[in-house]
Amino acid sequence: MKLYWTRVQDKLERLRANKLFETFVIFVIIASALLIGAKTYEETSRFDIIMRWLDLGITLFFLFEIFIRLAAEKRTLDFFKKGWNIFDFVIVTASLIPINDSEMVLIARLLRIFRVLRLVSMIPELRMLLGALLKSIPRMGYVALLMFIIFYIYAAIGSFLFESVDEKLWGNISVAMLTLFQVATFESWATAVLYPTMEQYPYSWIFFLTFIFLNAFIFLNMMIGIVLDVMQKENTAAQLESGEGEAAEIHWMREHIESMAEQLNRIETQLNTAETASNKGKQP
Amino acid sequence: MKLYWTRVQDKLERLRANKLFETFVIFVIIASALLIGAKTYEETSRFDIIMRWLDLGITLFFLFEIFIRLAAEKRTLDFFKKGWNIFDFVIVTASLIPINDSEMVLIARLLRIFRVLRLVSMIPELRMLLGALLKSIPRMGYVALLMFIIFYIYAAIGSFLFESVDEKLWGNISVAMLTLFQVATFESWATAVLYPTMEQYPYSWIFFLTFIFLNAFIFLNMMIGIVLDVMQKENTAAQLESGEGEAAEIHWMREHIESMAEQLNRIETQLNTAETASNKGKQP
Amino acid sequence: MKLYWTRVQDKLERLRANKLFETFVIFVIIASALLIGAKTYEETSRFDIIMRWLDLGITLFFLFEIFIRLAAEKRTLDFFKKGWNIFDFVIVTASLIPINDSEMVLIARLLRIFRVLRLVSMIPELRMLLGALLKSIPRMGYVALLMFIIFYIYAAIGSFLFESVDEKLWGNISVAMLTLFQVATFESWATAVLYPTMEQYPYSWIFFLTFIFLNAFIFLNMMIGIVLDVMQKENTAAQLESGEGEAAEIHWMREHIESMAEQLNRIETQLNTAETASNKGKQP
Amino acid sequence: MKLYWTRVQDKLERLRANKLFETFVIFVIIASALLIGAKTYEETSRFDIIMRWLDLGITLFFLFEIFIRLAAEKRTLDFFKKGWNIFDFVIVTASLIPINDSEMVLIARLLRIFRVLRLVSMIPELRMLLGALLKSIPRMGYVALLMFIIFYIYAAIGSFLFESVDEKLWGNISVAMLTLFQVATFESWATAVLYPTMEQYPYSWIFFLTFIFLNAFIFLNMMIGIVLDVMQKENTAAQLESGEGEAAEIHWMREHIESMAEQLNRIETQLNTAETASNKGKQP
Repeated sequence: MKLYWTRVQDKLERLRANKLFETFVIFVIIASALLIGAKTYEETSRFDIIMRWLDLGITLFFLFEIFIRLAAEKRTLDFFKKGWNIFDFVIVTASLIPINDSEMVLIARLLRIFRVLRLVSMIPELRMLLGALLKSIPRMGYVALLMFIIFYIYAAIGSFLFESVDEKLWGNISVAMLTLFQVATFESWATAVLYPTMEQYPYSWIFFLTFIFLNAFIFLNMMIGIVLDVMQKENTAAQLESGEGEAAEIHWMREHIESMAEQLNRIETQLNTAETASNKGKQP
Repeated sequence: MKLYWTRVQDKLERLRANKLFETFVIFVIIASALLIGAKTYEETSRFDIIMRWLDLGITLFFLFEIFIRLAAEKRTLDFFKKGWNIFDFVIVTASLIPINDSEMVLIARLLRIFRVLRLVSMIPELRMLLGALLKSIPRMGYVALLMFIIFYIYAAIGSFLFESVDEKLWGNISVAMLTLFQVATFESWATAVLYPTMEQYPYSWIFFLTFIFLNAFIFLNMMIGIVLDVMQKENTAAQLESGEGEAAEIHWMREHIESMAEQLNRIETQLNTAETASNKGKQP
Repeated sequence: MKLYWTRVQDKLERLRANKLFETFVIFVIIASALLIGAKTYEETSRFDIIMRWLDLGITLFFLFEIFIRLAAEKRTLDFFKKGWNIFDFVIVTASLIPINDSEMVLIARLLRIFRVLRLVSMIPELRMLLGALLKSIPRMGYVALLMFIIFYIYAAIGSFLFESVDEKLWGNISVAMLTLFQVATFESWATAVLYPTMEQYPYSWIFFLTFIFLNAFIFLNMMIGIVLDVMQKENTAAQLESGEGEAAEIHWMREHIESMAEQLNRIETQLNTAETASNKGKQP
Repeated sequence: MKLYWTRVQDKLERLRANKLFETFVIFVIIASALLIGAKTYEETSRFDIIMRWLDLGITLFFLFEIFIRLAAEKRTLDFFKKGWNIFDFVIVTASLIPINDSEMVLIARLLRIFRVLRLVSMIPELRMLLGALLKSIPRMGYVALLMFIIFYIYAAIGSFLFESVDEKLWGNISVAMLTLFQVATFESWATAVLYPTMEQYPYSWIFFLTFIFLNAFIFLNMMIGIVLDVMQKENTAAQLESGEGEAAEIHWMREHIESMAEQLNRIETQLNTAETASNKGKQP
């Protein structure tokens, strides 16, 4: 019985790793994405029944594919050790929960949209790219915190000073932070934010200009800092670890020159003693 | 007869490679560009007949120049092995197709505009620049795909949630993607897109802010990644291939030190055996 | 008496350096920030009395914390040798000044907002980040001066030429500089500034385009310059000072090869003299 | 007589190089800049007479300063060999031309504004910065040409296709190029340019999106290219020319190892011949 299961597992594993099967899975994900897109067109409402059947088919295929990958694993729980597998499992199973409540339809729809993200988990290059992106998050953390503090302080000042100018822009601290984000993206910051404020407070340009300069300054420094940081680390790591490149060759040379210097010392000592000996042999 | 043709071919080749002739071709291309520009001014309609004649003259000259380059080639088909030659040939011959249909006039006009691109094929520096640009496309491919997935997901969510806010901005997924592109370029993203949406959905700023941060984050990482990638490759390649520079000198040194170490070993062994021999010779 | 004080001081120093106490201080700063934010919402006016008490509590706690740090210092005046300590002291004590004048309420409020900046002085990573930012200021100084000169010249020309177009945009040199800053951020620069000006002065696009190109050009060069500058300095400093890395190993190798070369010279001389001697010994 | 002149010249040269005099010149330039700025305020019209006198004073001082620098030169014509001197001379003397024509007043005013640029010629750091900027112009030339070609082609297509949409935006090729520049800076490109066009030509987004992507793509590549170019050149030049740093040390090492290898060869040969000789001596 157990032997039979192992043979089935081998077959499933071979199916899972099959290039053609993988391509088909990607094709189904793209089809699911196109279906989601098609639903947003009103003209497609008359194909409603066909689309429901297609939707069901895609859901079942995804379930089938997850089952294959689960079954192909030697120990079933090992499947959940990889983050991408958990991601796939949640996305697929969540769409199975029966929804009768009309309000929940929206959530069901959103879940179907997130299926498109399975494309990232299926294509190794995208998985690597996302991994690289996630790795750079902690590096940006403290800069983000500093920026948030600046936004918070300016928003507090802004909502204290300019509340009377425009309730919609400076009404409270969260609205003011959104307004400042708009200013930071330069969107209508002068025509819609600065000039109306300057009519009441002629010196308010100091507030906005210092904010823009501070932001630009921190952003510029952050970018430069990250470029330098990444560059230094990657360069050194790549050369030393691979055992090739300049750094490795220089290290190799250093060690060899050290042993050569010792050898030369031995040779010189030997020659000296030999000469002394031959001199001694001649003298008497 | 064949000998005569070869002599003609030599003369044509010499004409083609003539610096003066090349300059004249560039001059005609610029004239053709100016003619296209002049036609967009209404005031020039009274010079219509002159411009038609000029147009014909330019077309004939381009034909003549292509013919010279074709004839100068030893094997006529070799001409079509270079991408730039095919490009020139298509641009020039396409404008010969007789167009009577009034609808086709537009296409004929567009073809004449693309003649300006022949400037790129004539100036070697621009050709090199374009070559460098084309080489960097594959590197950007997967980042573009990741960005497209993010745009698609946000557009799907946007058109599901905000369709009731503004049919023109969120009516279907393609319109929503265009709106998101507008948001990504920061054009009126707050005044024309965010604020109208927030009136109906007060928490929609989460949607827009996550989208902007995600975009900025990926774009920043992509730029840094490309800078580092290009730098590392060019640096190593330039130094190793040219046989000069640090990397090459270090490599040379490593090999020489290796042979020196072996030589020192041989010398030490020889000295040792010599000493042993002389000791043996003395002992008895 | 003095001994007793030293023991108290030790206890205070231990309290100050306590990780839990530091976390609590950060927590109080965040609470103070949230309180400031909460005050900007009109709905919170009914909790006015609670907020006053909270405010008083935070002020007293900050006073208490500053007192501990002051007392924990061996020499009280050493406390004021660190810039961050002075910053904390001013921020905390300034909010103690009794304010009766209604006009001064605003300043009291602003002072409370700047308390949020104490977060920077409490978290070492933010302190380091800010230090790095401040270090990069002088590097940007002359570029900023050059940019200011360009802004000033263009603003003077603009206010001479375009004053009749729009008094609000070009009325005097300071207003014109603000308008040019708006143009530099690309905010409505074409629709609100360029096109109205071009209606009266059709060639004014030359003014705006040269300004934009000049700005972009200097900005680009500045960014590149700073990246290169920082990179070169950090790289060299890091490698040479740490005594490790390529530069240090190469320097070590150079010195060793020098002594090896001298040693080889000595060996060769010795061998030559030995040979001459043995030859002489044979000859007679 | 001549000797007397030389002594006067020495004194003038010492005055010119005097730090205090230089500071005073900078001070007068700043005063002249402030005077220009003050004139743009209407409120200052009542100080008109004072300002005229100040203006005359500044003009005379500049003349005096130029005369000193001219006289201090050993050969008067050497003064005109430096670009900055010619610049100063033109700026100062041009404001002497008597202007009666009311139309010429504008030019006189503009010339006075350009005096502010003398600040650049007086401060060495700004002169160096400008020199570095000018050096980077040729590098950007061909990229600018490529961009211009792209703008020209898109403008020609745009003015052919979209002339009926908006005469003001697409009326002729120069207006269309300005519109495309506005699109390239993302200023109201969607709300004011794209959407009105899409109402008549629903597929015109292809035109705008390809244009934006092409621009961003070339700009990105240009920036990266320049960073890499500058970096490589400066790095290599700095290390090789100074005779220090890694590259120089590596080169030194390479040469020394070469001579050491030859020396080792000689030693080995000598030892071999010595052994053979001693063997021969023993054999018979």
